[in-house]
Amino acid sequence: MSVPRSVAAHRQAVVELLTGVLAGKGNITLPLLEALGKALAVDVHAPLSLPPFANSQMDGFAVRSAEIPDGGAELRVVEPVPAGAAPAALKPGCAAPIMTGAMIPEGADAVVPIEKATPNTFPDPAAADATVRLPPVTPGTYVRDSGSDIGKGALALPAGTRMGPAQLGLLAALGLTTVEVREPWSVLLVTTGDEVVEPGEELTAGRIFDSNGTLLEASMRQAGLDVVRTGISGDDPSRLLEVLRRHTVPGDGRVDLIVTTGGVSKGAYEVVRQAMANQAVDFLPVAMQPGGPQGLGAFEGVPFLGFPGNPVSCLVSFEMFLRPALSQVLGTPAPRPVLRARLAEALGSPDGKHQIRRGTVAADGTVRMEGGAGSHLVHALARANALVQIPGDVTELAQGDEVEVWML
Amino acid sequence: MSVPRSVAAHRQAVVELLTGVLAGKGNITLPLLEALGKALAVDVHAPLSLPPFANSQMDGFAVRSAEIPDGGAELRVVEPVPAGAAPAALKPGCAAPIMTGAMIPEGADAVVPIEKATPNTFPDPAAADATVRLPPVTPGTYVRDSGSDIGKGALALPAGTRMGPAQLGLLAALGLTTVEVREPWSVLLVTTGDEVVEPGEELTAGRIFDSNGTLLEASMRQAGLDVVRTGISGDDPSRLLEVLRRHTVPGDGRVDLIVTTGGVSKGAYEVVRQAMANQAVDFLPVAMQPGGPQGLGAFEGVPFLGFPGNPVSCLVSFEMFLRPALSQVLGTPAPRPVLRARLAEALGSPDGKHQIRRGTVAADGTVRMEGGAGSHLVHALARANALVQIPGDVTELAQGDEVEVWML
Repeated sequence: MSVPRSVAAHRQAVVELLTGVLAGKGNITLPLLEALGKALAVDVHAPLSLPPFANSQMDGFAVRSAEIPDGGAELRVVEPVPAGAAPAALKPGCAAPIMTGAMIPEGADAVVPIEKATPNTFPDPAAADATVRLPPVTPGTYVRDSGSDIGKGALALPAGTRMGPAQLGLLAALGLTTVEVREPWSVLLVTTGDEVVEPGEELTAGRIFDSNGTLLEASMRQAGLDVVRTGISGDDPSRLLEVLRRHTVPGDGRVDLIVTTGGVSKGAYEVVRQAMANQAVDFLPVAMQPGGPQGLGAFEGVPFLGFPGNPVSCLVSFEMFLRPALSQVLGTPAPRPVLRARLAEALGSPDGKHQIRRGTVAADGTVRMEGGAGSHLVHALARANALVQIPGDVTELAQGDEVEVWML
Repeated sequence: MSVPRSVAAHRQAVVELLTGVLAGKGNITLPLLEALGKALAVDVHAPLSLPPFANSQMDGFAVRSAEIPDGGAELRVVEPVPAGAAPAALKPGCAAPIMTGAMIPEGADAVVPIEKATPNTFPDPAAADATVRLPPVTPGTYVRDSGSDIGKGALALPAGTRMGPAQLGLLAALGLTTVEVREPWSVLLVTTGDEVVEPGEELTAGRIFDSNGTLLEASMRQAGLDVVRTGISGDDPSRLLEVLRRHTVPGDGRVDLIVTTGGVSKGAYEVVRQAMANQAVDFLPVAMQPGGPQGLGAFEGVPFLGFPGNPVSCLVSFEMFLRPALSQVLGTPAPRPVLRARLAEALGSPDGKHQIRRGTVAADGTVRMEGGAGSHLVHALARANALVQIPGDVTELAQGDEVEVWML
């Protein structure tokens, strides 16, 4: 077996694999809300300024500030300006009742809040010849200038921006109804092994239910991938090849990426290794535990990743390689938040292997392990909220030592 | 106007409102993958043990450990045990080649890894009378005991657990195909205001495009709510009442919750306040900026929340009140990660009001503001990755001071 590859080197290899996928894909246009969680494929420039026009930040009186001396002034009250209206120009010597968000009339340059007016209520619009006494005000007071948030033509969102509520809200404020995103990727997900049985079927002696399929499909869906499932493939390489060939015929049914689980170790019954014998696929050890054995390459020209067969190894493979590579190449999903936490217990770790333990980070900044190192401990995994990263050159850690954690 | 209510007190009022919604709803059963991101409605106990049977952690030889003395032993090699097979009992004086994950034969109690065997390869299964020399091994070595992850009947996941890939993977490993979750809630979302125009329509003078609808629908979808939209309602209370009445008729079309935006202040054209005149709805100031004016109550018996009309106020209202209340009452969505960050700049804040600024937290743990305090700054909002929380009793903060940030 070759010298183990570092985690960083293997992740880079996955990035390069996915960069190849990206090159073969285009963009699509979606209604704003369907783009939620996706990344912008192109820069978006503002088709209009925000605010589109100068407007009032308060309910008050729009005035010409130069008309009010230090001692205040009595001004004639003209027709009120509700939000949504296009007001007439403000005549000299006048004050216009104005609502929050309403357009500042031409000629006005400041707003005096209603609280500072005498009387401090708006006159009945039907009342003729009403007046109001207002204190002095500096130009621009309580005026939201046109373009003060963003000017027409400026970069509103750069390509690659992940679109959440605020980003979509901005595009709506700019009057846009659609947005350009990357064409979605389809991933063929095949779980392998004679010992694996579909949940809901009968479990005979020596067999286990497949959790990898559900675990990885859920992970991939969260990451924005379109997942194609085939059911479980047993340990017969010819059956696996048949499944893979069915989804790699050039044309509409050809997937963009293949991910298998199981069958990548050095043992006697390694179905994925056997099936890939004539393909441009490497099987190599990564200096990582769990999830050390990995396959990477292309099957009939379709980029291929072979994950190991234990559920924890599958999740770790996804989180350490595929998910960060997708974030880097596609802009989605969001990278996992990375924090430092203090160990609630002492830990040992094998020399030369980057170990990933599952842990629960508490509010006090400590992290305790969930279950042991075993990659079959899926109940322990389900209790964890973080992956605990222990670099390959670390073999002993004391209680209270700081470790890097990736929040799940 | 009454004395402003604290942020905590208003959030508690929203929790109580939603608790009432919950009481009227039941549970539904979904296929595992459709439950992704939802919360479990009931406890799930393990219908079987994990692992279901003792199995090997390594490729190696299953042995009776008591048969190997300190100096090692030469044992007869019997039929191999692949993963998925139900092996025969191990005869005395024998060693069974066994694959990772394969069932430990009856009688065997330990596995010697293939690397420690002499020879260190498995014999051809067709070869008769093959033997292997093995070193001593303590009982239990490289054996994953049945139930070592979880025992049959034990609590697998408690009610309220949010289901991500690992939790769904566990349920699949337990052979389950469906899961019980809370019935989804439908929310009627109505944006109001004569000044607001649907994106894509013509923008006349004095008007702005509606961003609240998109921003809040996206937020609500992410939180797992089913959103019903009605289009924009203008400033005519009778039109708004008509829209609300249409969705609150007892029966299938009756929504579980109503959220409006705009029209909740003290001004002259406050359509939501006017429409709610005969309903059990309070309009009150919360000691918060932005998002201070809030409405809360019930319209024709349907729980009602009235958010203010500016986009930043809408987002802040959702994040400070509705989202955390949903997390508390329903178990979803996940609470926002709360961190401490150091201010990159000095800040002032109004006395007596909990201020929420929008900021970008950098990798070095500092946070800088995006835009000013103005609640109309939706482009600044779209650049931010966090809400910066400044308590009501804080008026001045220096560069480098620590503040609480909620990561968006």
